[in-house]
Amino acid sequence: MSKLTDEFNAYRQKMNEKILSADNLVIKRLYNLDSNTYEDGALPAKTKEMLGLVASMVLRCDDCVKYHLQKCHEQGISNDELFEIFAVANIVGGSIVIPHTRRALEFWEELKV
Amino acid sequence: MSKLTDEFNAYRQKMNEKILSADNLVIKRLYNLDSNTYEDGALPAKTKEMLGLVASMVLRCDDCVKYHLQKCHEQGISNDELFEIFAVANIVGGSIVIPHTRRALEFWEELKV
Amino acid sequence: MSKLTDEFNAYRQKMNEKILSADNLVIKRLYNLDSNTYEDGALPAKTKEMLGLVASMVLRCDDCVKYHLQKCHEQGISNDELFEIFAVANIVGGSIVIPHTRRALEFWEELKV
Amino acid sequence: MSKLTDEFNAYRQKMNEKILSADNLVIKRLYNLDSNTYEDGALPAKTKEMLGLVASMVLRCDDCVKYHLQKCHEQGISNDELFEIFAVANIVGGSIVIPHTRRALEFWEELKV
Amino acid sequence: MSKLTDEFNAYRQKMNEKILSADNLVIKRLYNLDSNTYEDGALPAKTKEMLGLVASMVLRCDDCVKYHLQKCHEQGISNDELFEIFAVANIVGGSIVIPHTRRALEFWEELKV
Amino acid sequence: MSKLTDEFNAYRQKMNEKILSADNLVIKRLYNLDSNTYEDGALPAKTKEMLGLVASMVLRCDDCVKYHLQKCHEQGISNDELFEIFAVANIVGGSIVIPHTRRALEFWEELKV
Repeated sequence: MSKLTDEFNAYRQKMNEKILSADNLVIKRLYNLDSNTYEDGALPAKTKEMLGLVASMVLRCDDCVKYHLQKCHEQGISNDELFEIFAVANIVGGSIVIPHTRRALEFWEELKV
Repeated sequence: MSKLTDEFNAYRQKMNEKILSADNLVIKRLYNLDSNTYEDGALPAKTKEMLGLVASMVLRCDDCVKYHLQKCHEQGISNDELFEIFAVANIVGGSIVIPHTRRALEFWEELKV
Repeated sequence: MSKLTDEFNAYRQKMNEKILSADNLVIKRLYNLDSNTYEDGALPAKTKEMLGLVASMVLRCDDCVKYHLQKCHEQGISNDELFEIFAVANIVGGSIVIPHTRRALEFWEELKV
Repeated sequence: MSKLTDEFNAYRQKMNEKILSADNLVIKRLYNLDSNTYEDGALPAKTKEMLGLVASMVLRCDDCVKYHLQKCHEQGISNDELFEIFAVANIVGGSIVIPHTRRALEFWEELKV
Repeated sequence: MSKLTDEFNAYRQKMNEKILSADNLVIKRLYNLDSNTYEDGALPAKTKEMLGLVASMVLRCDDCVKYHLQKCHEQGISNDELFEIFAVANIVGGSIVIPHTRRALEFWEELKV
Repeated sequence: MSKLTDEFNAYRQKMNEKILSADNLVIKRLYNLDSNTYEDGALPAKTKEMLGLVASMVLRCDDCVKYHLQKCHEQGISNDELFEIFAVANIVGGSIVIPHTRRALEFWEELKV
């Protein structure tokens, strides 16, 4: 896999481990809950990952976008589906979402190599 | 239909008409584009309305939430599906989303009367 | 003058007086500085009020919008100019700015009675 | 106790019960965790409530502000301490925090009756 | 021209082309509309670019700030005018706008070389 | 001291000097006021720096977080206290605060070398 994605995952994992090793109960439970949120339920995991992606985009959190892009890729989301999520994010969040859309597409292209 | 929903729709329609009658081309095209965004495409309208709802919740726009709740209701979204959208919004956006979740549920209950 | 504007100004003045009477130096200086910001300088007050209005709109602060609408009205901003400010706010901030645009127009119409 | 605070608490409790009765596990755990966050630990509950208050103010969530104002009141925070929290919130978050400061002070005054 | 500005423009153009080549109609129209928004109208393009800049600053979108700084530079905005826009952005948006003001000034200085 | 912190402080100081040398009165006073805000008062400086930190985290301003982390370090805040501030920020602001928590911890570790 390509460089952007590797770097992101390595840093994410290293720092998450440090955060969790501090043994703050609220943070540990919250991070745990965060993973549970996107599991299959009344809505399939694929839909939930799309929800996580669009929420991350309108809140303009590049790292959250990268995380959910990986999950969306694992869930087999197509290019056309991705761009329709981008469209909702850009319409709801406005032109300030455009720079995040650029970085999201760059990351997505690396995922597909 | 019940009072909250009627009031919301009446005010929304009255003011949208006034805004559009001002003949500002950018605004007219943007509002038009906004409607197009949620039509069936690679993703079904139902999924897009869920995306619109979660985006509105994390951005904490009560009126946008109400609008997409109506659309989600028309698309036949179930209570369990709704609460999973609420869950994503609350996890991604944090406890500041809770008051908006309260008002969203109140509006949803009126839609179902 | 009409009701929305009167109510807004009465509450604003009453509470600002209470806040300032608490004699917190940082707050007093900050509120003072806030007024100075919009005075004529390299840019005329009219332009600065437009800047204050668009900033308030994209940050979706209805009360700030109302305040700057009054100032824009005093500065003689026309309807067409107002809608071009609305257009920038809606494009930059996205569809979540629409409900604030509705309330802004309602307030503006009362100012012009 | 006075009207604003009663209304706020009654609505908050009624809707929270409805939300929790839906039995969405993520939401139930998150709301639970939210309460745990502000308990005495390395930092006393009083400090944590001040942190919750300033965070709610800069994020401009009036209902969250009201909730933490009640908790700060229970923790015996003084008027002078409150205004220094307001000062941090207004400096960090800017003049868009002013309208929320007005409403916060109004609610605080009712708590002290 | 200097490095920061070249890099920014090259990446922006490359990724915008990729985004637009995906042929998502909503996105194509929205990006188109975005350009139209800042053309001469009831307000001159110069004023509109200042509005776009201040909106981008309070929303803390560095790339949007860079884009509008270039446009403001093309429109002949002076240093004193720029700092008055910075002042409005810092007052409205608070001290969290300061780091973006630093990066904005750095970019502006490169534009003027 | 280590690299991240040095780089941050050098850039911050260089650009602040440039900003202040422009002699915009509003900006000069605002930046001045910003420093005053965190001085000992009814609340000790230590508490105020914690307030500044949590506010910066939920607003997701990495540079503001770094600044307040340095001040918190100077005030002798312990690891356990820091993680309880992180907990409040993550609960109030949601999972979008996680990436900022990672970078905050990395910076904090450098401060402690």
